This record gives sequence, C-alpha cells and structure tokens, in this order.
Amino acid sequence: MSLLDDLRWRYAAKHLNGNAVPQEDVDYIVEAARLAPSSSGLQPYHVFVIRNPELLAQLSQCVYGNQQVKNCSPLLVFAAWNTYTEARINEVFELQNRVRNVPDSLTDAYRTRLIAQVAKQDLSEHRHHADKQAFLAAMCAMNAAAERRIDCTPMEGFEADKVDAILGLAELDLHAALLLPLGYRDEEVDWLLKLPKYRRNSADFITHLD
Amino acid sequence: MSLLDDLRWRYAAKHLNGNAVPQEDVDYIVEAARLAPSSSGLQPYHVFVIRNPELLAQLSQCVYGNQQVKNCSPLLVFAAWNTYTEARINEVFELQNRVRNVPDSLTDAYRTRLIAQVAKQDLSEHRHHADKQAFLAAMCAMNAAAERRIDCTPMEGFEADKVDAILGLAELDLHAALLLPLGYRDEEVDWLLKLPKYRRNSADFITHLD
Repeated sequence: MSLLDDLRWRYAAKHLNGNAVPQEDVDYIVEAARLAPSSSGLQPYHVFVIRNPELLAQLSQCVYGNQQVKNCSPLLVFAAWNTYTEARINEVFELQNRVRNVPDSLTDAYRTRLIAQVAKQDLSEHRHHADKQAFLAAMCAMNAAAERRIDCTPMEGFEADKVDAILGLAELDLHAALLLPLGYRDEEVDWLLKLPKYRRNSADFITHLD
Repeated sequence: MSLLDDLRWRYAAKHLNGNAVPQEDVDYIVEAARLAPSSSGLQPYHVFVIRNPELLAQLSQCVYGNQQVKNCSPLLVFAAWNTYTEARINEVFELQNRVRNVPDSLTDAYRTRLIAQVAKQDLSEHRHHADKQAFLAAMCAMNAAAERRIDCTPMEGFEADKVDAILGLAELDLHAALLLPLGYRDEEVDWLLKLPKYRRNSADFITHLD
C-alpha cells in the first residue's frame, strides 16, 4: 500500500466505536509525529497521550457535542509553545549539537540570529509559528495512523481555554493546537463514511508554470 | 518500507544536485497534497508547480542565499488564502454537495455558521488558519516525496512580499505560505547529510496520562 492509498482510505471519522488502539500502534503514530520536520528543528510542541477516562470525559465536554473524544482511546493533544524563549532555543541547539557531536561554535551565529528574530516578534506570531509546526507533526501522525488502518479525526474547533485549563497547559507555557482522537470508525453509525470523499479538482488546485 | 522508514530517510536537503524530478513523481506528490485533510474541507490553498527557469532564477533570489530553489525542479509553492470570503466558502460547499449528491439543505446550517464565524475574524486570523491547512497539505507532499526517495526542503524563511509579487499572488487573494523545492540530495556537497538526525527524546516529547 502506498501513501496515496492510505490518504484515500482515511477520513475524519465522526463516530468511533469505542475500541482502544493498542499501545504498540499508538507508539508508532507518536513516533511519526516525533520525526516530523520543524522550522530550525525546534519541535515547538509537546504531545499528550490521554487514556484516562476522567480526563477524556472532561475533554469531551469541550468539543461542541462531537462524539469522537468520548469514544476514542487514546486522545492525542498537540500542544504548541506559547513563547519562543531564549532558554528554549538554547536548549534545542545544545541537545542537537551534543547528538551531532559538533561544537556549539558551529551553530552560534544561526542561533543568535534566531533568538534576535523571535525577540522582535509578538506573542501571537510565536503561537502561530508553533501551531504550524505542530500541524506538520499532527499530519505525520495522521498518515501513520492511516497506514495502520487506524482512524483519527483532526479537531481544531474546541473550547481552547477549557482544554488548556484541564491539562494545565498555561503553566507549561503551552496551548492546545489540535486534538486528534484515535480509534476505529463506527461503520454502522457514521453518516460521513457513506458519502464520497470530496476534494477540489486537480485543475482548480494546481497551476503549472513551465 | 513504512512511513517511519520514510521519515528516517528524509531530511531538509541543503544542496540539491540539479536533476529534475520526473513529472509522474511530481504528480504523485501533488496528489498527496490534494488529498490532505483541511478544516471544514475548505482546502484554503493552491499549489504552484514551477519548472520555468526564469521564474526559478527570480525566486532563488528571495531565499537568503539558500541553494535549493536554484537547483530544484520543480519548486512547489503552497499559496494560502488571504481571506475566507463568503463566495469561496459557498463554492466549496456547492461543489462538495454536487460530488456527494446531497441537497444543499443538508449543509446549510453548518455553512451559514461557518460564514458568520469567519466574518467575525480579522484577516490575520484568516491567514494563520489557512497557513495551518496548507502545512497539512505540504506535509503530505513531503511524505509522498520521501516514499519515492525524492528530496525536498520545506522553507518558511523567504522574502514573502517578493515571492508574492513574482507569482502575482495578491491578485488571486493568495500568499506564499511555504516553498518546497523538489530534487535529489547532492551527496558530495551537503554537509547536513553527514550529521545524524536530531529529534527531541520521546521522554521530553510525550506525556502519557493514563
């Protein structure tokens, strides 16, 4: 099977059947997120893997009546940095240089430029930049789930303040960027499964400049 | 080969060797982007596939001296909507309902709510929302490229105003969100290829709440 097969198979399940995804599959999915590229290699996000029934019950109250959070296991929460601090950037470069066995002097000019650049940006720019990186990681997780024929539903529409409070994200200088319930489609109940996949036609989506 | 193998193989090539990617592979990569999920199915972006040497020469002047745009073929430009207009949203729902053979009345409440919601947002929210969706599509393209052992380098750092002007994006109510040069790594020259991949450790990246 190819990635295109996986993308044609997947859809944003509206109803999950309540069966839990085995931990080995979850590990595979989260590992794909961990390997995703990110701007300057910062990986400005953290992934919460939530199976705790009480937390899932609380979080399911924050998604405007949608069923997936109640019937998933686990829920992945992609939580992005609120702030690009000098300490966070320094930590990444130090770890990276240690793993790569190169002297810090090799990256000092780049690191210093990056720190100066983010210092000029306001916090909304930091959040948006971090969100985009988190979305790259979430897409890798979705592709990995589809490869294993595990369903998931990317959710951006949720009560962000409540989710952040339930998970204590503000204290970690994080915010929930995307919820990704994992599970298995409920083939009996899910109306969306019966409808053909819609995407814009290639002719309306692509422009070739040769 | 699995997605994890592909993700371990890929890296953000710093030097491409100038060989062009066959069109059949490019079609595969862009099809993955087309099949990506997006919020409310809006696909608020457009993909430019650029092989024109003059355009590549001009665009290569907008990436702060990086070599990949000069030596790629093609360059993909993920151009996101500037504005979520009522007309754009209506068009998506009309096409979607026609493909799915369902009456517009089925989606009218959702569509009306969505139009009211975006009308309350400012243009920076529109741009950021569209960028995030474009990043999902770009990640699908990157994974498709890696599956075929084609290199690419996601680039967010470029002179956005110049790129938009060269491609005439403002007239289309679009802006360049991400550049993705496609090609083949230059194994002789690329210093990054010699360094091990760095990612945050799982323990620092994941929190399990069981």
